[in-house]
Amino acid sequence: MTTSNRQFRLAARPVGLPKRSDWNVTEEPAGQPADGEVLVKVLYISLDPAMRGWMNEGKSYIPPVALGEVMRAGAAGRVIASRHPGFIAGDHVTGVLGVQEYALAQGKHLIKVDPRVAALPVYLGTLGMPGLTAYFGLLEIGKPQPGQTVVVSGAAGAVGSVVGQIAKIKGCRAVGIAGGPDKCRYLVDELGFDAAIDYKTGEVKAGLKEHCPQGIDVYFDNVGGDILDAALARLARGARVIICGAISQYNNTQAVKGPANYLSLLVNRATMTGMVVFDYAARYAEAAREMAGWMAAGKLKSREDIVCGFDKFPEALLKLFAGENNGKLVLRVGEE
Amino acid sequence: MTTSNRQFRLAARPVGLPKRSDWNVTEEPAGQPADGEVLVKVLYISLDPAMRGWMNEGKSYIPPVALGEVMRAGAAGRVIASRHPGFIAGDHVTGVLGVQEYALAQGKHLIKVDPRVAALPVYLGTLGMPGLTAYFGLLEIGKPQPGQTVVVSGAAGAVGSVVGQIAKIKGCRAVGIAGGPDKCRYLVDELGFDAAIDYKTGEVKAGLKEHCPQGIDVYFDNVGGDILDAALARLARGARVIICGAISQYNNTQAVKGPANYLSLLVNRATMTGMVVFDYAARYAEAAREMAGWMAAGKLKSREDIVCGFDKFPEALLKLFAGENNGKLVLRVGEE
Repeated sequence: MTTSNRQFRLAARPVGLPKRSDWNVTEEPAGQPADGEVLVKVLYISLDPAMRGWMNEGKSYIPPVALGEVMRAGAAGRVIASRHPGFIAGDHVTGVLGVQEYALAQGKHLIKVDPRVAALPVYLGTLGMPGLTAYFGLLEIGKPQPGQTVVVSGAAGAVGSVVGQIAKIKGCRAVGIAGGPDKCRYLVDELGFDAAIDYKTGEVKAGLKEHCPQGIDVYFDNVGGDILDAALARLARGARVIICGAISQYNNTQAVKGPANYLSLLVNRATMTGMVVFDYAARYAEAAREMAGWMAAGKLKSREDIVCGFDKFPEALLKLFAGENNGKLVLRVGEE
Repeated sequence: MTTSNRQFRLAARPVGLPKRSDWNVTEEPAGQPADGEVLVKVLYISLDPAMRGWMNEGKSYIPPVALGEVMRAGAAGRVIASRHPGFIAGDHVTGVLGVQEYALAQGKHLIKVDPRVAALPVYLGTLGMPGLTAYFGLLEIGKPQPGQTVVVSGAAGAVGSVVGQIAKIKGCRAVGIAGGPDKCRYLVDELGFDAAIDYKTGEVKAGLKEHCPQGIDVYFDNVGGDILDAALARLARGARVIICGAISQYNNTQAVKGPANYLSLLVNRATMTGMVVFDYAARYAEAAREMAGWMAAGKLKSREDIVCGFDKFPEALLKLFAGENNGKLVLRVGEE
């Protein structure tokens, strides 16, 4: 019997927010692994803001998804069949498996994970790319010192929530910027941030003034736009700004809004640095081990927002851009 | 007999380009030095883009010039009378003497210079703050490596011309962006830049593509605006962008134009860092000695654009913003 595999393939380059018709759903046999390959049943697909960028044409930090190609996505699943010595059927793995129900992948590109240590969706969030992005961006570029003030935007998201918690672990003051009172309460009450600023009130500037009386030493930006400008206006001398993403700009149909306050870098002798987590691949395992230790010790909490149903992919992805997800957004697509 | 001292005092905060009525000319006795002070006859006043920023209200890297205060300016002059042990009448000095004919200054804030080593205006340019800005900005923040491509905007100006020449001394490819064919020829034919791009042709993007086939490793920005955006679009992996100034934005009556291409920092894992030369004060003497050595060896050339007449100050300053100066702009205000 041949297993059928449904896939979302890129059909058009979106203008503005992606819509269902920007993908085609195709169905084909799941296939069998060739030598070195592994057949994985996809259980959870990671939905990340970066996916929007991958749909655009043009040079970026990785090539765009080609038209007709299976939509790129990180995912977690269970090995069905393996012709790679590192894996056997029943193993759980993560990797760039794509938006599909089954994936044939090179074993060397897969990471084995242990569902007894953490639930599979956690390996797509706090112990996966978003968590690693937070870890390396904050520690390697932000270089926060105890007592310094760390501000993060998109603070209730998969990256931002980890940034703030690691800042606390490192003895910093952590201030989060997020949308709505629920997320803000979550940051302070559940995750231990010192303060949270609800950008939907329009009071980001005043909030930063109130909660960062000595200025911002490290600003970790996931959003761009007006919030980046408000943070720039409040930098402390020698501040480090980490450019991790710009979710407010990804669906622009006009030009990106550049940070009008960038001359604050000059006034404050500050640095703005872009980061891509792939550059730290050699240290993923070490970082994930340290973060798993923090989770076990209760110092690092994780929350996932799980949408069920393969077919829901296009609408689920949009939750990110509306800020509707609570924690790491994951699409559940298969049963164990 | 009392010596009379004319002064330009700030009368109004300019909107857009500064105009003559933004200052009052006052006249008062030159005075006599108190203990620790030196009376200096001002011979040359340095005209710098930064002066426009000092006229604005609000927090910056130094306090604004207050209304009614003598306009701040670097200058070079001759000591008339001294009550500081480090100086005697006849010494030549530089310092922040202001736009006036005579200045009473604390001796500890003055730097003695030798007109036999270089003409006085050179101590306001290549061997003064602009040259030191180029030196520390390029070497300490840009960290250019032999064979790398260094691009500088405002390349025919006092800072930019030194940036490009030091880049050549360090074994880099130097590409300058300047306004008009004369300046561009000067950069290549006189100063030894590898290429020059005339921004007035509107072909900055194409020029950078042609002259930086491997991308830009170090971009030293003096201008901001569209040229900064064009350079960002062409960064090499791991590039360093130095934000030294933004002359295109200083006279804006609207908001500063932020760099729309700032996400190139992310794609290219690049860094944008602001610099203020004051932070390197402890190393000024060492750097000036090294640069004087380069000048003596013919590796570092200097050109000054000297406007004569104290009263010409307001109009002379505007040459900077029109890009009309050829080399370091200096106002000659007194006779030896």
